[in-house]
Amino acid sequence: MFEFTITATDPSSAARTGVFATPHGDLITPVFAPVGTQATVKTLTPRDLHALGATLVLANTYHLYLRPGVELIRDFGGVHAFMGWSGPMLTDSGGFQVFSLALMRKLDPDGVTFRSHIDGSLHRFTPESAIASQEALGADIIMCLDECAEPLDRKYNEEALRRTHAWAARCRAAHKRPDQALFGIVQGGIFGDLRIESATTLTALDFPGYAIGGLSVGETKEQMYATLDLTVPALPAHKPRYLMGVGAPEDIIEGVARGIDIFDCVLPTRVARNGGLFTRQGRLNLRNARYAADPLPVEPGCTCYCCQHFSRAYLRHLFKAGEILGLHLATLHNVHFMIQLMAKIRAHIAAGTFASFRESFLAEYQLSNQDVRHAQRERFLARQRATT
Amino acid sequence: MFEFTITATDPSSAARTGVFATPHGDLITPVFAPVGTQATVKTLTPRDLHALGATLVLANTYHLYLRPGVELIRDFGGVHAFMGWSGPMLTDSGGFQVFSLALMRKLDPDGVTFRSHIDGSLHRFTPESAIASQEALGADIIMCLDECAEPLDRKYNEEALRRTHAWAARCRAAHKRPDQALFGIVQGGIFGDLRIESATTLTALDFPGYAIGGLSVGETKEQMYATLDLTVPALPAHKPRYLMGVGAPEDIIEGVARGIDIFDCVLPTRVARNGGLFTRQGRLNLRNARYAADPLPVEPGCTCYCCQHFSRAYLRHLFKAGEILGLHLATLHNVHFMIQLMAKIRAHIAAGTFASFRESFLAEYQLSNQDVRHAQRERFLARQRATT
Repeated sequence: MFEFTITATDPSSAARTGVFATPHGDLITPVFAPVGTQATVKTLTPRDLHALGATLVLANTYHLYLRPGVELIRDFGGVHAFMGWSGPMLTDSGGFQVFSLALMRKLDPDGVTFRSHIDGSLHRFTPESAIASQEALGADIIMCLDECAEPLDRKYNEEALRRTHAWAARCRAAHKRPDQALFGIVQGGIFGDLRIESATTLTALDFPGYAIGGLSVGETKEQMYATLDLTVPALPAHKPRYLMGVGAPEDIIEGVARGIDIFDCVLPTRVARNGGLFTRQGRLNLRNARYAADPLPVEPGCTCYCCQHFSRAYLRHLFKAGEILGLHLATLHNVHFMIQLMAKIRAHIAAGTFASFRESFLAEYQLSNQDVRHAQRERFLARQRATT
Repeated sequence: MFEFTITATDPSSAARTGVFATPHGDLITPVFAPVGTQATVKTLTPRDLHALGATLVLANTYHLYLRPGVELIRDFGGVHAFMGWSGPMLTDSGGFQVFSLALMRKLDPDGVTFRSHIDGSLHRFTPESAIASQEALGADIIMCLDECAEPLDRKYNEEALRRTHAWAARCRAAHKRPDQALFGIVQGGIFGDLRIESATTLTALDFPGYAIGGLSVGETKEQMYATLDLTVPALPAHKPRYLMGVGAPEDIIEGVARGIDIFDCVLPTRVARNGGLFTRQGRLNLRNARYAADPLPVEPGCTCYCCQHFSRAYLRHLFKAGEILGLHLATLHNVHFMIQLMAKIRAHIAAGTFASFRESFLAEYQLSNQDVRHAQRERFLARQRATT
């Protein structure tokens, strides 16, 4: 179990295809995981996800720990059975949400105490409890408890890294289920020496896979890419690499080129619910009046159910009228876009044509991520203000 | 086109099965139409509706007239093409919504002037404009503009009936599309003599079908059933009869027993979105804490996608967490329940066993409709207050 077989490598970059064996099926990498925060990928059924070709689904331990509770899900046979998803799953440790959502948090060397954003009740995560929660949820891939520091703050990153490394060792020791792969999480902000130190420290703990955390949370794209350039070579080549929370199409391409195998992000599903639809030419905003009488599908030639049956005008009508069907159809399209993007990436790596695909994709893809990055930065600053 | 063939009659009641031929396919009656107010049955795709076995879908002229506009939908080839539904459709005239939703309305013998509930803009419906709007939408079955009076107010009903009858004649004269069946609407509140007068007057205009309007809006169930007992025999036996806006399971059974062929109602989809799930034993409220750890499906033995894959505990989690998937799955189940109920009714009429089915269904179905009737009455009173 959890063998990772590299099936093709790209001569122009660190890109590679592979197969990661999990108890719920093989993951063909590079793979994008839609996010099912509360044990549901918002607006989609499991049969929708299967039909879209999704293989890996993420759920958030923080949310499920608070509601409905990890014991309840364990008693239902785990999160797969609870939500009716039969494919591979991944849970995070809950740490990131404690830092971004919880109403109050107090760190100490042993763990983190916080108040629920739902009802203000007091809770505590330790490395051991984060593993226990994830063992109860029963995902195929689970994560160490870590601390995601502001990526540009050197001093904070140095301190956080000490905790993250100590907690990784404790998570490694606490984890017992042989049918789960526990991944270590490399941190260190945008600081190459810290990232290399983190990768080296975690590699010594011999995890079955490694995540890169703390990116796409306030740094520039150039800083993110440069950090990947330094971090990935410090990780073992024969283990899967997971870039956490990154999912803009251009970042996927650039991440794959730097040797990333697994991605997850709320972006495709979240922007869909705001009327933002991914196309090869960039993001289309359905709320724009120019689409009011537009008979074209969101993306001509797209094979998704939304594009095969509905016009931009109809989708815009659904959004203007506040109809749930609009959220569903937009989500279907964006997840289809991401799944197809990953399939194209894998095909081009296997065919040895990834370099030209990367170039032509990025040239055509006009998306300005300014709005998204701005929102991310605002969220990060709000989080910082809440701590100080 | 629009032949209505009666295929079986029930010896114990006025129940019957039939086939009503429309340009988009045959309707096997008795039939229940899910409501797609804004050109979407909330949370369901057309493929969901087909898979559920839905045949007739209703859309609201008032809503589509205001947004996105009937001309736009006409330019897209009509409401079927706009929303991607290939089966038979029915539109109402918009009159009921003007009386229940519009911010202001002013009646005169020629029509009704009102302000949009969306932006307060001023609009006017006349019998001729209501027909023109419905010709633009292009549904298979369309309705005369009528006035739905408070069912217990004799004087108001007498006045309203004069307008309704005059408008019916004008609608009949204005309607030109041969691929649409224009139905007359019988009004008259709970007053048998007015209902019979209305049925007789409209029958003289020779419509291809007849609707019974103004019920389930404040009167008791006994008053509604007694009104049907008097009204239906006054309508021609060889034309389809449509009971507007009635869709509680027990009312469907009792309506069929009194000779109704077509029903529509927002109830199954609206209560689903509030966590109310139809079962053979009555309505199950998913928000109830007793279901928090319940591993059973909503209705054991039910063949819908929701019951085949998900527990009450999971659905309750989705509702508590505010997840859209919960609204979708609950809607799927309730529409499935209604479609299956109609199929059972038709089978029992054909087999000559409708009397025992009616008795056993009503004995088992414990649903107290108190909450719904209360909400309906409150809405009606609010509407009355808005006029005076």
